[in-house]
Amino acid sequence: MIISMVPGATQEQIEHVCDRIKGFGYSVHPIRGEERTVIGAIGSSKDRDRIIPVMESVPGVESVIPILQPFKLVGRELKKGKTTVQLDGLTIGADQFVVMAGPCSVESREQIFDTAHRVKAAGAKVLRGGAYKPRTSPYDFQGLEEEGLKLLAEAREKTGLKIVTEIITTENIDLVNDYTDIFQVGARNMQNFALLKRLGRVSKPLLLKRGMMSTLKEFLMSAEYVVSQGNPDVILCERGIRTFETYTRNTLDIAAVPALKQLSHLPVIVDPSHGTGKRSLVAPVSKAAVAVGADGLIVEVHPNPEEAFSDGPQSLLPDEFDALMQGIGKYLEVEGKRL
Amino acid sequence: MIISMVPGATQEQIEHVCDRIKGFGYSVHPIRGEERTVIGAIGSSKDRDRIIPVMESVPGVESVIPILQPFKLVGRELKKGKTTVQLDGLTIGADQFVVMAGPCSVESREQIFDTAHRVKAAGAKVLRGGAYKPRTSPYDFQGLEEEGLKLLAEAREKTGLKIVTEIITTENIDLVNDYTDIFQVGARNMQNFALLKRLGRVSKPLLLKRGMMSTLKEFLMSAEYVVSQGNPDVILCERGIRTFETYTRNTLDIAAVPALKQLSHLPVIVDPSHGTGKRSLVAPVSKAAVAVGADGLIVEVHPNPEEAFSDGPQSLLPDEFDALMQGIGKYLEVEGKRL
Amino acid sequence: MIISMVPGATQEQIEHVCDRIKGFGYSVHPIRGEERTVIGAIGSSKDRDRIIPVMESVPGVESVIPILQPFKLVGRELKKGKTTVQLDGLTIGADQFVVMAGPCSVESREQIFDTAHRVKAAGAKVLRGGAYKPRTSPYDFQGLEEEGLKLLAEAREKTGLKIVTEIITTENIDLVNDYTDIFQVGARNMQNFALLKRLGRVSKPLLLKRGMMSTLKEFLMSAEYVVSQGNPDVILCERGIRTFETYTRNTLDIAAVPALKQLSHLPVIVDPSHGTGKRSLVAPVSKAAVAVGADGLIVEVHPNPEEAFSDGPQSLLPDEFDALMQGIGKYLEVEGKRL
Amino acid sequence: MIISMVPGATQEQIEHVCDRIKGFGYSVHPIRGEERTVIGAIGSSKDRDRIIPVMESVPGVESVIPILQPFKLVGRELKKGKTTVQLDGLTIGADQFVVMAGPCSVESREQIFDTAHRVKAAGAKVLRGGAYKPRTSPYDFQGLEEEGLKLLAEAREKTGLKIVTEIITTENIDLVNDYTDIFQVGARNMQNFALLKRLGRVSKPLLLKRGMMSTLKEFLMSAEYVVSQGNPDVILCERGIRTFETYTRNTLDIAAVPALKQLSHLPVIVDPSHGTGKRSLVAPVSKAAVAVGADGLIVEVHPNPEEAFSDGPQSLLPDEFDALMQGIGKYLEVEGKRL
Repeated sequence: MIISMVPGATQEQIEHVCDRIKGFGYSVHPIRGEERTVIGAIGSSKDRDRIIPVMESVPGVESVIPILQPFKLVGRELKKGKTTVQLDGLTIGADQFVVMAGPCSVESREQIFDTAHRVKAAGAKVLRGGAYKPRTSPYDFQGLEEEGLKLLAEAREKTGLKIVTEIITTENIDLVNDYTDIFQVGARNMQNFALLKRLGRVSKPLLLKRGMMSTLKEFLMSAEYVVSQGNPDVILCERGIRTFETYTRNTLDIAAVPALKQLSHLPVIVDPSHGTGKRSLVAPVSKAAVAVGADGLIVEVHPNPEEAFSDGPQSLLPDEFDALMQGIGKYLEVEGKRL
Repeated sequence: MIISMVPGATQEQIEHVCDRIKGFGYSVHPIRGEERTVIGAIGSSKDRDRIIPVMESVPGVESVIPILQPFKLVGRELKKGKTTVQLDGLTIGADQFVVMAGPCSVESREQIFDTAHRVKAAGAKVLRGGAYKPRTSPYDFQGLEEEGLKLLAEAREKTGLKIVTEIITTENIDLVNDYTDIFQVGARNMQNFALLKRLGRVSKPLLLKRGMMSTLKEFLMSAEYVVSQGNPDVILCERGIRTFETYTRNTLDIAAVPALKQLSHLPVIVDPSHGTGKRSLVAPVSKAAVAVGADGLIVEVHPNPEEAFSDGPQSLLPDEFDALMQGIGKYLEVEGKRL
Repeated sequence: MIISMVPGATQEQIEHVCDRIKGFGYSVHPIRGEERTVIGAIGSSKDRDRIIPVMESVPGVESVIPILQPFKLVGRELKKGKTTVQLDGLTIGADQFVVMAGPCSVESREQIFDTAHRVKAAGAKVLRGGAYKPRTSPYDFQGLEEEGLKLLAEAREKTGLKIVTEIITTENIDLVNDYTDIFQVGARNMQNFALLKRLGRVSKPLLLKRGMMSTLKEFLMSAEYVVSQGNPDVILCERGIRTFETYTRNTLDIAAVPALKQLSHLPVIVDPSHGTGKRSLVAPVSKAAVAVGADGLIVEVHPNPEEAFSDGPQSLLPDEFDALMQGIGKYLEVEGKRL
Repeated sequence: MIISMVPGATQEQIEHVCDRIKGFGYSVHPIRGEERTVIGAIGSSKDRDRIIPVMESVPGVESVIPILQPFKLVGRELKKGKTTVQLDGLTIGADQFVVMAGPCSVESREQIFDTAHRVKAAGAKVLRGGAYKPRTSPYDFQGLEEEGLKLLAEAREKTGLKIVTEIITTENIDLVNDYTDIFQVGARNMQNFALLKRLGRVSKPLLLKRGMMSTLKEFLMSAEYVVSQGNPDVILCERGIRTFETYTRNTLDIAAVPALKQLSHLPVIVDPSHGTGKRSLVAPVSKAAVAVGADGLIVEVHPNPEEAFSDGPQSLLPDEFDALMQGIGKYLEVEGKRL
């Protein structure tokens, strides 16, 4: 940690800072320049996370610059290899490119079964579908709730697909746990820390979506919440961030995929549907996800987007999804990966 | 609602769109230009919120432009007057400028009592203090929990101040309800819809902070969640948004205050502490909040920021808070308001 | 164009709006809803661009929603095919994937010649190099100026590569025109309209970089400035936008490539160097550019980044550039394109 | 400057870094922690600005953290007092609050004269008006050019107001210099460094607007360009930044005013018209500008916004401007300032 003093900081202030640093069990290395003094602090007390805000508040301190990454368990500093998430026959994070597909919301038996059969036939391994929907408007469709979970489970029975579905409140964890294979935490809940802590104590993988205005570091800190509670199976999902651009629904941060893989050992997938919000952009962006080394996709597919209760404009028709899978297939060959 | 067709949309597509609109019980008004056709749709079915995504998915449609604001209960279209939140002797949203002040987190009896006495003496009417803290890092201080709530309640006893404290999960609503006067929902939970719905069914006011990634319309939609469940007493709080600028912690959107007041009848307060993240900017921005017509402030004050468990760099010393209150006092006189 | 009146607009206001619209030679189509009136306006007067701000200022008008895209010459509405830029043996915008590579700045004869030979050997067709550098600090290296242009021309002689170099002020257009094959306008000058107008009257292609703060529509409007002055040969370049994320220098908007191709007939290339700012991210993002259908790349390569006068951290070593070219080669095969 | 090495950097890499630092004439202070080494570098060579990118490119370096502000002449480190801009009877940056007002564009003799008389009567001291307009669309009104400058000069004759007008290209500097009192550089040209350098060699003050996606540090670096060429009279103007929020045209960064004053000795004014883009928000935000310590305002006023060639929706009517001036008058009294 480096502490930069204001220009003109007094000797007394500098000494006070040094004393505070030593009080945390760190060693002190002041460097006196002509215009200002900076102080290096070396150590790793259990108060490592508290020392920064404390030092920022000490008189005469201009800024405090942490050197170590704040994410310990999900970062590369301690674990060198890759985390793979095993799901009875399915491995996420290795040489399999896992495609999760299905409608935004589970709407009816026919809709979810039709979709499940089509996406399975095209090569998807996991069925997505929301039973609890976080909607911007209280007047929008909020999901079929437990009925939706049951339909997902039935579709799993019939197709052998795994299922992933969103969890929006701690109160439903046990219920959703009875049905799902993978929990999903949506962008709006990426910093719902009460929810993350509880999901750190379940024994199923978690698909964690990046918040639409979250930095990569915050994203990894949210994964750290889960892993620090005992659940190592976190799958990161880049799904676009909010920017000034309004032509697309979000701005898909494609470089986040290799960046996250440099910073962390967790698998990373891409959501091209929310990432763009436009059906016509989903297929090219999916190929880009293969190109940057993603471990999979989560794609919205609906047999009749015009009838969808939500996210119709970004949902692919099953035929469009078939074409997407063929397109990425050739790239996966180049990469030596398989569906 | 206006539907704009793609250039070259076929007659068949246009007719299909018109049929779909009529199916929702709307009347149809096509306008044919040389290059494209746009279609006006008039009506107000109970499916008003579903019609937009459906129409966006119909072939040949380029875009759908809603005309009515999606927030009904918190908007100006139905209610012309102002909402005032009454709190036994305190009125938020009228000619009283209500200052809420206190530490980021409740840390100890001495800390919260000292602060309470000082902010009360300076003119604050509500004591703030977090017992449950949503922290970016799982290793940061997470709050004293119920012990913190008890200390807040004791401080209320001793000073007569009301209290406001943050709620971060539905599971704690009953517990927090036993102690607090005002519930606070933080920026990270602004779209935690499960939480908002439940807080729509309590009988205490809610201080709702704007999400750092949220537009004014989304902010008002979150307020709509609460009001639509039966709780009309929502206080909006502008606390800065996330932008590319890193010098300040957030970018305080000062124009949001008069904008929210034009769009909604709810009271609006400002959080200059999170809005800037820098102690030296809190006082000028607080005066600006009076200038744009805010109904109050929520300010972080700590007797010893250097010892604070969180947010030290943006917390005012009690003496600095006294000076702030004097500064805004003169502006309040100009505005004909009182503390 | 659709004009939405405020709720409660008077009959007199509505009529005044209709009169103003007719005054521009448009026909008027009012649609009266229960809560408000919206008015469709059909026509295409030569004042098309002035009518919107005028109508926004008329009393009783809430908002004005344009339906037609404002870019006429670069948009898809008038020209259906693709623009290809021909450069004696080189075609940008067809089935050739054109790689432009070289140092950020021309620094010395040895540096530019070495780089030119290496990037030519790897398959690049155009040599990039700045002779005039727009630098954030007045104390940073500002370029070798005409000396740099001469070195670029010599490198062209020796290698047969075309050259592209940045133009930063109208005063240098004639001078730069004596040397370069392609003019480049940088992100900071994307809305330097005086410069764009003058480059619309030269007879060489223009590589136009997207401003870091510019929407796709503004980007296309800047291209429209050039084309409207008579120069049809504009190559668009996505180079990342500014967002809240600080881990990468910019956020490369990968979906912008297919989006621009849907909106416009102009060729689109990608700058993975500025788009990420990190050497380790350049190669994966370059492959993503092929995946989304870009027509080429512009990449920073430096024989010794540690000695570079600018942009060292994002410059590839020649060996890294070789590897990048091999990586994209396999994807180009899949796409049926050639270098 | 602090250099942080990657974890596991070799001894050889560390020594190479130290050698490079010494090569720049700096002294070296390595601090070895358990997980990584950081190196302090102290000195101030004339290569201070080149050392950072060089060190970022050296193998084994993870990041380079500058400690000193890069703006020397406009920063507080060398000059403690305030810069005041003197303009024959007018002082900007002291206890006078200088209001500049007028239309976006000069459109006609009648328009500019009427406006000039009205804003003068209300207390403005400077007349604004564009003769050269940077417009997003090539089809929009581009200004009356020299005819507009002549009308501004005539209006000055008649009213005694000073004038400020925008300069958009180096080629017009001499011409505009013949007429104006203050040069204005618009947001889109804030990083048009060729223009800034030339304006650093004129002997008239420069009003420099913040770019819509420029950080405070970049803004000050642009001012540094001007001052480093010999022109000390730069007036900074906060005019709103671009964010994800679309309700307002820009997001006025009110905290930027006190922040700029802490970082720099230059005067700072606010543009509430572009800062909000909505007539109804201009007056409250203007009062906020006084509250945060701004040295003045620049406000768009038009006798008939409905007829304005540009920016009608954000222009005040003269009566509205009168009301604004009365509103800020009371705040100026509180602050001990005068118009």
